[in-house]
Amino acid sequence: MRLTAHIIIAALLICSVVLTAGEHPSLVITVGEAAAIREDMGKYPLFVRSFEAMKARVETALNRPIEVPPPGEGGGYEHERHKQNYREMQEAGIYFTITGDKRAAGFIRDMLLKYADLYPNLGRHPQAKDQAPGKLFHQMLNETLWLTNAAMAYDCVHDQLTPAVRAGIEKNLFRPMIAWFTNENRKEFNRIHNHGTWTVCSIGLIGYVLGDRELVEMALYGTDKDGQGGFLKQLDLLFSPDGYYMEGPYYARYALQPFFIFAEAIERNQPELKIYEHRGQILKKAWYSAVQTTFPNGIFPPINDASRTMDIRDSGMILTNSLAYARYGADPQLLPVAQIQQEVPVSDAGLILARAFARAGEVPGMTWPSIEFTDGWDGRQGGLGILRSGEGREQSMLLMKYGVHGEGHGHFDKLQFIFYDQGREVIPDYGFCRWINIEPKMGGRYLPENKSWAMQTIAHNTVTVDRKCQNDGSRKEADEMSGQRHFFETGDPRVQVMSARAEGYYPGVSMQRTMLLVRDERLPYPVVVDLFRVVSDRVHCYDYPIHYRGQLIAADFNYQAFGSEQQPLGTEAGYQHIWREASAAVAGPLRLTWLDGNRYYTLLTAGAEAGEFFFGRSGASDPSFNLISEPIFILRKEGQNYLFASVIEPHGWFSEAHEQSRDARGRLTTVKVIGHDETGSVVEVEGANNLRWRIMVSNGPASSTAVHTMNLNGTSFSWTGNYRFEF
Amino acid sequence: MRLTAHIIIAALLICSVVLTAGEHPSLVITVGEAAAIREDMGKYPLFVRSFEAMKARVETALNRPIEVPPPGEGGGYEHERHKQNYREMQEAGIYFTITGDKRAAGFIRDMLLKYADLYPNLGRHPQAKDQAPGKLFHQMLNETLWLTNAAMAYDCVHDQLTPAVRAGIEKNLFRPMIAWFTNENRKEFNRIHNHGTWTVCSIGLIGYVLGDRELVEMALYGTDKDGQGGFLKQLDLLFSPDGYYMEGPYYARYALQPFFIFAEAIERNQPELKIYEHRGQILKKAWYSAVQTTFPNGIFPPINDASRTMDIRDSGMILTNSLAYARYGADPQLLPVAQIQQEVPVSDAGLILARAFARAGEVPGMTWPSIEFTDGWDGRQGGLGILRSGEGREQSMLLMKYGVHGEGHGHFDKLQFIFYDQGREVIPDYGFCRWINIEPKMGGRYLPENKSWAMQTIAHNTVTVDRKCQNDGSRKEADEMSGQRHFFETGDPRVQVMSARAEGYYPGVSMQRTMLLVRDERLPYPVVVDLFRVVSDRVHCYDYPIHYRGQLIAADFNYQAFGSEQQPLGTEAGYQHIWREASAAVAGPLRLTWLDGNRYYTLLTAGAEAGEFFFGRSGASDPSFNLISEPIFILRKEGQNYLFASVIEPHGWFSEAHEQSRDARGRLTTVKVIGHDETGSVVEVEGANNLRWRIMVSNGPASSTAVHTMNLNGTSFSWTGNYRFEF
Repeated sequence: MRLTAHIIIAALLICSVVLTAGEHPSLVITVGEAAAIREDMGKYPLFVRSFEAMKARVETALNRPIEVPPPGEGGGYEHERHKQNYREMQEAGIYFTITGDKRAAGFIRDMLLKYADLYPNLGRHPQAKDQAPGKLFHQMLNETLWLTNAAMAYDCVHDQLTPAVRAGIEKNLFRPMIAWFTNENRKEFNRIHNHGTWTVCSIGLIGYVLGDRELVEMALYGTDKDGQGGFLKQLDLLFSPDGYYMEGPYYARYALQPFFIFAEAIERNQPELKIYEHRGQILKKAWYSAVQTTFPNGIFPPINDASRTMDIRDSGMILTNSLAYARYGADPQLLPVAQIQQEVPVSDAGLILARAFARAGEVPGMTWPSIEFTDGWDGRQGGLGILRSGEGREQSMLLMKYGVHGEGHGHFDKLQFIFYDQGREVIPDYGFCRWINIEPKMGGRYLPENKSWAMQTIAHNTVTVDRKCQNDGSRKEADEMSGQRHFFETGDPRVQVMSARAEGYYPGVSMQRTMLLVRDERLPYPVVVDLFRVVSDRVHCYDYPIHYRGQLIAADFNYQAFGSEQQPLGTEAGYQHIWREASAAVAGPLRLTWLDGNRYYTLLTAGAEAGEFFFGRSGASDPSFNLISEPIFILRKEGQNYLFASVIEPHGWFSEAHEQSRDARGRLTTVKVIGHDETGSVVEVEGANNLRWRIMVSNGPASSTAVHTMNLNGTSFSWTGNYRFEF
Repeated sequence: MRLTAHIIIAALLICSVVLTAGEHPSLVITVGEAAAIREDMGKYPLFVRSFEAMKARVETALNRPIEVPPPGEGGGYEHERHKQNYREMQEAGIYFTITGDKRAAGFIRDMLLKYADLYPNLGRHPQAKDQAPGKLFHQMLNETLWLTNAAMAYDCVHDQLTPAVRAGIEKNLFRPMIAWFTNENRKEFNRIHNHGTWTVCSIGLIGYVLGDRELVEMALYGTDKDGQGGFLKQLDLLFSPDGYYMEGPYYARYALQPFFIFAEAIERNQPELKIYEHRGQILKKAWYSAVQTTFPNGIFPPINDASRTMDIRDSGMILTNSLAYARYGADPQLLPVAQIQQEVPVSDAGLILARAFARAGEVPGMTWPSIEFTDGWDGRQGGLGILRSGEGREQSMLLMKYGVHGEGHGHFDKLQFIFYDQGREVIPDYGFCRWINIEPKMGGRYLPENKSWAMQTIAHNTVTVDRKCQNDGSRKEADEMSGQRHFFETGDPRVQVMSARAEGYYPGVSMQRTMLLVRDERLPYPVVVDLFRVVSDRVHCYDYPIHYRGQLIAADFNYQAFGSEQQPLGTEAGYQHIWREASAAVAGPLRLTWLDGNRYYTLLTAGAEAGEFFFGRSGASDPSFNLISEPIFILRKEGQNYLFASVIEPHGWFSEAHEQSRDARGRLTTVKVIGHDETGSVVEVEGANNLRWRIMVSNGPASSTAVHTMNLNGTSFSWTGNYRFEF
């Protein structure tokens, strides 16, 4: 009996020791959570799949010799190896914590020891350029990701290492790296920018693991611990009150990772900070604003320097979806997100989401409502408007950008729009000019054409003035202004309207764009109406561009095609990259139809008197074939005050494989500008079978109650509020 | 008792009457088959789905007023309505026969009566152009499809109609149409061409239904019943002994329908003709040769006037797959075809295939072997070679065309190749220049650019001479010659080789192309080796083109880009449609890499001394934007006897969405021509890690035993047979 009791007591003691040492891991997983995961991990298909995939990657890593090469060039083999190493360490840490597989712990130990051998001998990376330099990597950004992941891995195996091993790793690896980040790169550390967030995240995490509260304080409040830098300041300044991230959604999905990883570590180690409640749950808003900007297929709109294919299956979005679900009240709207992602992180939160997903049974397609995000830390610097109609993948989506420039990655694209229909970007944004990570394309970095084309105003769907770029291409100037919202009204599902302004982006020119997404039952799909008004003190040359994809089917006007010699449309501001394929003199309304995928699109514009029209294609002045060849229409008008009034009508169906075509001609026939002035704009749209829309929009201050009257050509038009739409 | 016996006898009599009248339907379904279908129709998912889809279409038709409009323009509303009508009648006939739903029978009766009212008042269609004219349709071809389907429908409801109704329909509709086909269009009737096949099919079918053996005889043997025209002659002349259809696979899938429909009607009504055995089971061979030319995804290679998307899910292929399966011995290789099709016809044969498919359980991806088809009715007019490596969708496929021209739809593309890899055409054929059935694009007909671009030699992956088209663009001349096979050897899965010749396609020029699909374990994917040899009595300008898709990534030589002014590469023979984007002087080997989808492709060529290289793009001289913008490389060499030696190496992986790239540079480094003469060609390929291939190919007559020796630069090369490949 006494022997048995001894054994029990001994067992309890061992258990207690484990629990006390349970301070490690503490960042993103605990011993207790690992036990719960072990218990339930086979029950939910999403979790099973995610765990099995992780296990396979870990096994691959364990069965290969550890390789810690000297630093190499950005995007090169060594660079990629170091990235792979931190990913493998992080996963091996989680894997060890859940399974107890000592091979995984040994893998982390051995790899960290190799880095501890290497790191003290490194100086500033020789290929560091404009950005803050790293030692392992050419830019410190990569190194902060390395440390973030290494800290999580070290946290998981901390208690498996002898004090001597720990001391060696800390002294030769972590401390020198911490010093590099907090001393030599103090400026980057305190920067209010996603690079700063990764930096403070990495230092905060390693601070918790080493039990060094000084580091944690710096991470939270800046190197001077005065709150002028650090995590909390970033939470306050990098998002609008709605959670909109100033660099746009493509960067939000990247920035959300350090925000959530660090928040999770803070919540677990300093719950008294109530980090998830900070600034009215700004992290929740940040998550929603990122995911709610996406197209119905989960791809982020490629605004600013962004790719055209990044989507919510990105690892950062997978991580943060489960944290948002677990920390902010199990919103069933996040299950369709998981449906697209088909993966959860191997964590407590991932298990919670996978369980809910399994229990939900049939999960509908992801469907977000029309929504507007204010921009700027104070929410007063314009915004981003998104009109939506329909459900799931078949939803139509119209996006207009009228917020801040967004610093270094900003494009000169104020008031541009993107139209998504039929599961694809129909009126697209070019995104960045970068063949990301393709080494022969300048190491996968931004190409010269990113500045000369992708950032330029004419590369976007917004009016250019005098063939120039907004702000004349000056980022500094652009960062000092922003677009301004006028109104955003989506109460009537038949007519949703947003209106915004851009003042001074061209000297002396005011621009107002009002966009409508109209769901008229007589037409098969939602239709875009676009009223772009420019006002100036003198005459300018206004170019109204529409970027599209696919194949021109019909034009209802004569044009001259430059079939035997082609020249660019201009010499600068992006025009040098547009081949002038054809041009036309314009005397009135125009109608063009193109085919994109299985659907036709007709652009109707009120045209212009004495205007010009161009058919263009990107690809001129591109000696290294860096650009993608895509078509563009441009309507040009010399004028002082002018209203571009257009409609984009999706219609019909074509399948080459079935050799069938329906309704290759649209039903709308004409757009007429009745008049426009400082009070308002009045436009009429007509179509077959007596279809007729009359649209009145207020051009003065926003007001839901003001009564407006305009007398145009002897007819009086009046409406109350910001707009009136008559079917 | 006696009363009962009377009743039984009466019942038997009724039954017997039904059986006697069981001659109807007899074309493609019988009363007995319909009963068997009713019995089993719920058992097999493929059949259930197909029947339910048909039922839904029939219900839609039954619930809409019958509309028989006057004739309209090709592709217009009336045209489409008449097409829809015959499809609906045909399906309603099957539906009635299986279900006994009298509404369906009434629908057919009422529609035929409306046509019987309309038809006698019609003359030759006013819009008939080059083709044989119809009355309901602008071309008789459509009208023969109408009659084929109407005959099947009439067959199904024949016994439901009163003699008076039958007499009216026959007198006013069928007899005038028969006269139109057999008298006024006698020439078309007797034509050895797929239009002729549709004609004889329609007349044969209506002949069986009307019990008019005279018509059947004409359908089988021509209007003069002398065997110079008609179905049997078509079976003898339109296919090579291997079953290859002279117009190519895109047209084969269309032509196979009347061949199989009529064969099925013959088999059921005149089994003594043993039509399925005719010419050594030529119909079986025709079916296999069509389906075995397809890419691994089921799309037909777009050779000749063909679309790029037509695939084996086409209704004709669905019909004929089940007939081939039912009539030619239940080949399990046809189940993967049904897997792609996901549909069977609602018929006895469809039920048989659906049953086998259901019983098979797991069906693998469609995988055909490397195969060569001879061309010409006698099998001596060249052929089509296809090398394949791998399985299912991931199979690589290399196709070379060296058969007959193929009459009106033929392209001037002798010795061209197509390379399919990674689930897509990587080195594509442009197919036709036609926006099929898109009414605003010239009614969906062939566009002028079909002749000026799509048919031209330079639009294909084969050498042009002196910037001209083969046969100088003369179809007549082209139809009088053919390519010639040299050898086709696929015994070694590591090295598969095909070689063919084209003599006289340019006056005084002989061409031989030898293509290899090499599976070297040191490389990740099968590699194409291309040895294109031209021999002449004098100096010419040889252009070696490679059409590709995607984005140029790297070139290892300097070139001049025409970024500020672009002109076409020439003025005729298709060159007027190619923008000259850049050019380079060539002094030796060249290496270019592009990205297509998720994979990189590197073109290595031995280049040329004093050669030129062009980067081009289709789209010049295209005033109506009819062409698709696609890139092309052209290597140009002035010479007399010349060997273009090239390699296309697929490598690496790129995903923009994952922002990952691997192996953007290939492993092969150079191609060297050691020498070539009338005996043979010797070429060496080198790559990283001491990879080295030596390739010797015989240029003389094919022989598996001949010993060849060449002395080149002091080295002796010898081999036995048609080629030797040394790793």
